[in-house]
Amino acid sequence: MFQAPNTSIKAASLPIAIDAMGGDHAPDAIIAGAAEARIRYPQLKFLIYGDEARVRPLLDAHPLLKASSELRHTPDIVGSAVKPSIALRQGKNSSMRLAIDAVANGEAAAVVSAGNTGALLAMAMLSLRTLPGIDRPAIATMLPTQRGECVMLDLGANVECKAENYVQFALMGAIFARTALGILSPLVGLLNIGSEEMKGHAELQEANVALRDMALAGSYVGFVEGNDIPAGKADVVVTDGFSGNIALKVAEGTAKLVTHFIRVSFRRSLLASLGYLFAYGAFKRLKQRLDPRRYNGAMFLGLSGICVKSHGGTDALGFANAIAVAVDLVGQGYIDKIRRELARFETESAKTAAPATTSAAQ
Amino acid sequence: MFQAPNTSIKAASLPIAIDAMGGDHAPDAIIAGAAEARIRYPQLKFLIYGDEARVRPLLDAHPLLKASSELRHTPDIVGSAVKPSIALRQGKNSSMRLAIDAVANGEAAAVVSAGNTGALLAMAMLSLRTLPGIDRPAIATMLPTQRGECVMLDLGANVECKAENYVQFALMGAIFARTALGILSPLVGLLNIGSEEMKGHAELQEANVALRDMALAGSYVGFVEGNDIPAGKADVVVTDGFSGNIALKVAEGTAKLVTHFIRVSFRRSLLASLGYLFAYGAFKRLKQRLDPRRYNGAMFLGLSGICVKSHGGTDALGFANAIAVAVDLVGQGYIDKIRRELARFETESAKTAAPATTSAAQ
Repeated sequence: MFQAPNTSIKAASLPIAIDAMGGDHAPDAIIAGAAEARIRYPQLKFLIYGDEARVRPLLDAHPLLKASSELRHTPDIVGSAVKPSIALRQGKNSSMRLAIDAVANGEAAAVVSAGNTGALLAMAMLSLRTLPGIDRPAIATMLPTQRGECVMLDLGANVECKAENYVQFALMGAIFARTALGILSPLVGLLNIGSEEMKGHAELQEANVALRDMALAGSYVGFVEGNDIPAGKADVVVTDGFSGNIALKVAEGTAKLVTHFIRVSFRRSLLASLGYLFAYGAFKRLKQRLDPRRYNGAMFLGLSGICVKSHGGTDALGFANAIAVAVDLVGQGYIDKIRRELARFETESAKTAAPATTSAAQ
Repeated sequence: MFQAPNTSIKAASLPIAIDAMGGDHAPDAIIAGAAEARIRYPQLKFLIYGDEARVRPLLDAHPLLKASSELRHTPDIVGSAVKPSIALRQGKNSSMRLAIDAVANGEAAAVVSAGNTGALLAMAMLSLRTLPGIDRPAIATMLPTQRGECVMLDLGANVECKAENYVQFALMGAIFARTALGILSPLVGLLNIGSEEMKGHAELQEANVALRDMALAGSYVGFVEGNDIPAGKADVVVTDGFSGNIALKVAEGTAKLVTHFIRVSFRRSLLASLGYLFAYGAFKRLKQRLDPRRYNGAMFLGLSGICVKSHGGTDALGFANAIAVAVDLVGQGYIDKIRRELARFETESAKTAAPATTSAAQ
């Protein structure tokens, strides 16, 4: 009964704000990515924020994109190493900030940036605000598992978390899994270094107790460990931004390592090389499945607008996939759904005085 | 000049204490693993601690092992979910505790257990003591990388760390890499969620500053990220026990996931299956390379004796590999070397008032 209805998007009516200047290969990869996304989704319109002198020639090279874009010149760029507090103060006319503001003022349905994560988050929090009931937003992404996909959060927005942050992440993640992944009753796990109740920080233990008693949009399965993530033991993996970031990057790096080992193994004999030729299709499928660009596009959950962060080192294909994540979230009506679920949860909490609103006994 | 001399071990003179009752498949897998290790290393002698009624029949099935073992009956077993504090108080006659004590009193050169990690660490700290200059021991293991192997620590002994703990882990890890991996000038990295100086906890930033100024047994490369571990950017990866545990388990789980994807990919077509046949040797090499049992055997570094922790779910081969780690550490004279290096470091620190001895300003 909670299955996401396929909210129809009016054709030629999905405006996305793009920060053209964020990321290692900006603005080239950004514009090429937007062009690729425009081919995939004809309903897309872009508000492109960036240095006109650099972006205009790139748009000229992509007539289809150009025809459905509005280029808005922005004088400033947020550097990749700038502190969030500095970016907030000095970046008011940056491509990043103005692209976010386009969502805040209703011009765009979502914003996509490959720029400085900390600055993007700080600006998005200021401009879009957190949803009622959410203290801190979280960065979330999807990961491949043996059972399909899972969503993991937080990935770096909150280096340290209180019990109530974990609880709110669990809430947001469960709603996301139901809405975006279409899992009716997602399994929610709390990342820890052992499945026993006594393991981990005090904040984790407190969150574990609170989650056991809560009416989540899914079922709480308790603590999960690092190996449980790729095994698919949970559809939603809740963690702090430090551990989540490390888990995500270790997973990406290990997949690369194994692919490297495969290449080395197959180069070692003629027979193996012959086998490689026969199995070329299988290898191609494997490569596609492990392509980190497939999973590009981390979402800031808990804000009143949709903000998608692409990997900074992304190429055009990766950026197009990040735009696809934004299109998906808009199409599923994620913001409305999470608002409704949070309101429902608040009502239920008020009735039962749920522990989610108590403070972490740090 | 710092290359480890190949300290010769006198034949038939390497006594190892074994906790026969720790681990999911104890005592069967433990005894079978010891038997396998005895075949590999004829100089091994075992002091086996466990329930005589259960262990004796297993020894009877391995005559070679039996001939070089002394079985010592222990009435108690430390359960896998018991709290370390309880284990310390109630486990004085356990197989785990008495096996550790055999190292403390000089009967054994090392102890190997697949039991409860927290209990093993607590008992080892009490019985073996930390080395001068080390406040907290760390759990370390080796991991495969694109450049060979690295050592990562801590993996779970210290859920939260102060700056001086990270510094001491870096010291111990560097000496370990030089001694056990034979890397003359190991690259030491501090795990963080970004390579910029401003990222991560205050304790990490403080440790980063201290390490920059220190004379390590290697070179400090600064912050490394999760993906840098499998890429081999550092030979020694220093982290807290929470992040390290998650990183290790995510790496293991992801390697399994990729192997699963390979299997699925190759089952999908006849041509791919044919390719698999041709490339069977290559797949076998790959499988061996990724076999987590190859890397079984986490070391407790920073104690005045050698204590190796096998994975709790290990089989005989994995346990034999854990024993091999102990044999290696004894053979390399790791404890003497780390003592000397720590003494040298203390002397140098005293001269220059190095920041490593200042307390974390938490």
